Amino acid sequence: MIDPWGSGEIKDYEKIMKEFGIKPFKPLLKNIPDPHLLMRRGIIFGHRGFEKILECIKTKKEFCMMTGLMPSGDFHLGHALLVQQIIYYQGLGARIFLCVADIEAYNMRRIGLEKLRETAIEEYLVNYIALGLKPKNCDFYFQSQRSKDFKKSNSYYRLIGMSSRRVTFNELSAIYGELTPGKIMSALAQVSDILHPQLKEFGGLKNVLVPVGIDQDPHIRLTRDIAGRFNRANEIKFSMPSTTFHRFMPGLKGGKMSSSDPNSYISMNDSPETIREKIMKHAFSGGRGSVKEHREKGGIPEIDVSYNLLYMMFEPDDKKIQKIYDDYKSGKMLTGELKEITIEKITKFLEKHRERREKAKDKIEMFLNQ
Amino acid sequence: MIDPWGSGEIKDYEKIMKEFGIKPFKPLLKNIPDPHLLMRRGIIFGHRGFEKILECIKTKKEFCMMTGLMPSGDFHLGHALLVQQIIYYQGLGARIFLCVADIEAYNMRRIGLEKLRETAIEEYLVNYIALGLKPKNCDFYFQSQRSKDFKKSNSYYRLIGMSSRRVTFNELSAIYGELTPGKIMSALAQVSDILHPQLKEFGGLKNVLVPVGIDQDPHIRLTRDIAGRFNRANEIKFSMPSTTFHRFMPGLKGGKMSSSDPNSYISMNDSPETIREKIMKHAFSGGRGSVKEHREKGGIPEIDVSYNLLYMMFEPDDKKIQKIYDDYKSGKMLTGELKEITIEKITKFLEKHRERREKAKDKIEMFLNQ
Repeated sequence: MIDPWGSGEIKDYEKIMKEFGIKPFKPLLKNIPDPHLLMRRGIIFGHRGFEKILECIKTKKEFCMMTGLMPSGDFHLGHALLVQQIIYYQGLGARIFLCVADIEAYNMRRIGLEKLRETAIEEYLVNYIALGLKPKNCDFYFQSQRSKDFKKSNSYYRLIGMSSRRVTFNELSAIYGELTPGKIMSALAQVSDILHPQLKEFGGLKNVLVPVGIDQDPHIRLTRDIAGRFNRANEIKFSMPSTTFHRFMPGLKGGKMSSSDPNSYISMNDSPETIREKIMKHAFSGGRGSVKEHREKGGIPEIDVSYNLLYMMFEPDDKKIQKIYDDYKSGKMLTGELKEITIEKITKFLEKHRERREKAKDKIEMFLNQ
Repeated sequence: MIDPWGSGEIKDYEKIMKEFGIKPFKPLLKNIPDPHLLMRRGIIFGHRGFEKILECIKTKKEFCMMTGLMPSGDFHLGHALLVQQIIYYQGLGARIFLCVADIEAYNMRRIGLEKLRETAIEEYLVNYIALGLKPKNCDFYFQSQRSKDFKKSNSYYRLIGMSSRRVTFNELSAIYGELTPGKIMSALAQVSDILHPQLKEFGGLKNVLVPVGIDQDPHIRLTRDIAGRFNRANEIKFSMPSTTFHRFMPGLKGGKMSSSDPNSYISMNDSPETIREKIMKHAFSGGRGSVKEHREKGGIPEIDVSYNLLYMMFEPDDKKIQKIYDDYKSGKMLTGELKEITIEKITKFLEKHRERREKAKDKIEMFLNQ
């Protein structure tokens, strides 16, 4: 059982892919005109129904990308992985539906709505803008206040209310384990988040892409089941949402990034000194116990967090990352050297990012007045 | 256990009143300037916190009355009992919040939203207007589309989402028995229906009266519990909703009026011939087996449905109803005579009502544009 509110790590992707009908992404690559780094490098590793999205991209047909953010804790590098995808699809012409899951955070993490709003805007949205999100074709909204257009708001909330008829209690508890009213409400809100871009008040039937980590797949499957029931009842016509699945950026110590442990991630707010300290002290290394042993046996880049950070985000040049891999693997490059490269790349990126973020603040209002 | 979605009859009012802290209404009567017939005659028999409402009436302080309608089946005389109360309080200056529980009906009775809207307007609202409901100070709305003011809509739906955090699963199942997602959604929507008149978007903290049948008390208690938790969390300040409890109009055959059996009620659409037939053939009688026995022992007005219809609604003159009671009880009045009085009263009322209903149709739009 995959628990989207738990913190267990997903060990066996292949087994899960088989069980839940997720197809490998790689065979699609040759058909994608300008695949994103995350696609090329297999960080986006699986999909369900991406063919429909690809068709839209190729034929310039309307499609949209829907995703959400949970406004708690620091915005860190792990979050940036998803944001890069948002910006990639926005660049391809997709309308972006960006949901602040504040009702879910209110219910599940017990944080007040005002605080959640502040965090969503000042910590998340600002970073999204700095990373390249544009206000045009972006519908940024809060679950707690969908729109300034009453027709849109009412239809979004109506769909939450209606979805409760299209799912059984047993289905929900099979996915989420022990249920609470707050969990049920959060699950149904997320169903409406994913499906409502297809309501007539939002432009009607269209293809929707939802990029997720595999731990979010229960939500997706539930949503597809519910969409199918609305279709079969001839009540609302939905196209089945498409999904891509991406690997998570590893936590510095290995395992998952945890917002309760700042040493498990690099925050967008970390100073150069903090970045250096975190990478040097905490980043799990694939190096050997001694320089001598490392030179002899070589490092293990696959499990090295610094290498993974370069691979997933900070060294986009395929030849350069291959050379780093080879040098580290062969023992030519030491862990200290690998870490220095990573520190320099992240520090430069965040320096530039902080400048962009200052400018981003002026653009916040353009996202809020919808 | 009182099940608001079941159809079991409430046998023992006094026991329930004691168990759930419902106070008798009668002692308040002397303090009410112009008590309604339903109050005077004990049809409104209990209350919780009506003193606050009484204080508002006396000091001309703002208060509101909230109620809902389930748009399924014919509008019948039983429904009119509640409508009379709405109009009484509107006359006393209360703002009326009149909710069409269409999301609840959609989830629980599996009727489509469009059909529900049509029934709510053409069958229910029109009759409400004909009975005297005024558009001024009346907020008539659908759960599926709260308002044309996006701030109002968003705050109403936000409260549904937030309420799910303030109640446990066990509390809900203790009240409602076996739970479904649709039941939970309906229960939380009703919580917001009752509490949202006090949100700042609706004018803020105020006293709210909710007149209900005793089978609706689980909803009221749940709502009061949730309101108390919002208060203690210093999150939203609510005044505890006040409640009055009324007896149901008996079904023609005794027992409850059932919308699945037209012979159990008199519909506002029934022709004079149908009324005569229903009262003569179906109305349960407190008369004796023969005229001779009736003259000797007298009838039993308490269990006679015709008498009850006169008492609850159609003979407002206290002296006249007393005389009918005495004559029937003593055997002076026969069942046939009692039924003739009832038929005449109802026929006249409905004749006049149908005229009013034709005029009411022109006013529908004034209720819908909020």
